[in-house]
Amino acid sequence: MAKPLILVTNDDGIAAPGIRNLVEFMNEIGEVVVVAPNSPQSGKGHAITINSTLTFEEINMPGPQRDFALSGTPVDCVKFALDKILNRTPDLVVSGINHGSNSSINIIYSGTMSAAVEAGVEGISAIGFSLLDFSWDADFTQAKDYIQKIVKTTLENPLPKGIVLNVNIPKLIKEELKGIKICRQANAKWEENFDERTNPHGKKYYWLTGYFNNMDDGDDADETALSEGYISIVPVKFDLTAHEHITHLKAILE
Amino acid sequence: MAKPLILVTNDDGIAAPGIRNLVEFMNEIGEVVVVAPNSPQSGKGHAITINSTLTFEEINMPGPQRDFALSGTPVDCVKFALDKILNRTPDLVVSGINHGSNSSINIIYSGTMSAAVEAGVEGISAIGFSLLDFSWDADFTQAKDYIQKIVKTTLENPLPKGIVLNVNIPKLIKEELKGIKICRQANAKWEENFDERTNPHGKKYYWLTGYFNNMDDGDDADETALSEGYISIVPVKFDLTAHEHITHLKAILE
Repeated sequence: MAKPLILVTNDDGIAAPGIRNLVEFMNEIGEVVVVAPNSPQSGKGHAITINSTLTFEEINMPGPQRDFALSGTPVDCVKFALDKILNRTPDLVVSGINHGSNSSINIIYSGTMSAAVEAGVEGISAIGFSLLDFSWDADFTQAKDYIQKIVKTTLENPLPKGIVLNVNIPKLIKEELKGIKICRQANAKWEENFDERTNPHGKKYYWLTGYFNNMDDGDDADETALSEGYISIVPVKFDLTAHEHITHLKAILE
Repeated sequence: MAKPLILVTNDDGIAAPGIRNLVEFMNEIGEVVVVAPNSPQSGKGHAITINSTLTFEEINMPGPQRDFALSGTPVDCVKFALDKILNRTPDLVVSGINHGSNSSINIIYSGTMSAAVEAGVEGISAIGFSLLDFSWDADFTQAKDYIQKIVKTTLENPLPKGIVLNVNIPKLIKEELKGIKICRQANAKWEENFDERTNPHGKKYYWLTGYFNNMDDGDDADETALSEGYISIVPVKFDLTAHEHITHLKAILE
């Protein structure tokens, strides 16, 4: 039986330790092609490049996989890989491992998860992986067994159309990881606090900063599972319709 | 009674005819503050600016409203307005009027709709408006009465937390518009086709192009309503959890 074809991408850029670890883990499971941004793309959400052009290079990295660096966003990488680089539809798209959490509401800002969602839109099973450690030298190996289990299970049980997986991993050593919990997206948000500074020419400029406000301690919320030492998996859909609100709106607006 | 405070933003940039028309319509309903990108931001999705800084200018435009141009994305505009410009929480955030459709799956790529979603995350009623006409000199006045009706109804009936509205308007004259239909997001996607070119130095570069593939002729889909001459309204949520798939995943992954 042919090895499954796995497309790997991310938003921290093709050289980030997180994606290099994920590529190593995937090389043990399938035939791997990497199409990832040639520069950091954190916080790019589902952005696509429509008012400028894209270029790419094949680059040499250790391992049996092929690596392509694209001058675009994570979503561009998925679109470009499917149209221009791969000669068949991949069996799975994996994105990450992100340096930092993409739990709860962070999914909508995340380039990592947007790449997975784009693959889902294309009808391909897809998983985004994120480690709750922003540092460049984070240890991505502790959850290797879990990541491979999630990937193998998904290859054996392809996701239904319209659903992708958002996997977040606590910053714990292997022995401390308690297992996997399937969760819902916690109700949480960022409280903005723009940091105002003055440039050498006297003009004010601003850095986006803020703190994360988790308003949800439900047992089934991803934030809860993570805080208890579990790897959280949220099944994510991109039919954003609030079906439950249609009847009320019909009454007041139609 | 104090006039409602309405924050207006968009993704085509603060000078685009679509937002200038929306500001005019909103000036008849409330106190208007505009915080919009200082450059076109189409296709930026839910991108935020975290690796560079932001600047803004107050600019003079015709009308009683105040206008602020920010060097960021549509989502940045909402965050910045709430933290740095407005002295109270707006009663409503409106985004648009977008030059071009944001129906069905386009919501995930749309800066216009992402600004509305960001307002929703902040707990504010929000509506994105889009006209199915990409041209710069599109006629945004034909649906003025409908837009004002939707805004007034929403001010009188604030949206439940977690829901914003995606309003798309067919390119028709007033007399041809059949009314409003509350819809679900149609099942549709873009079929990519990157256009390959060669630059003067011999290097290949690519433009993202494609065609829109509507795979959904359901009576309740937004694409259907639009094709029949109705203004479509989809209630949109940002809890992306596929709740219906949790039980199955628990069985195979926990």
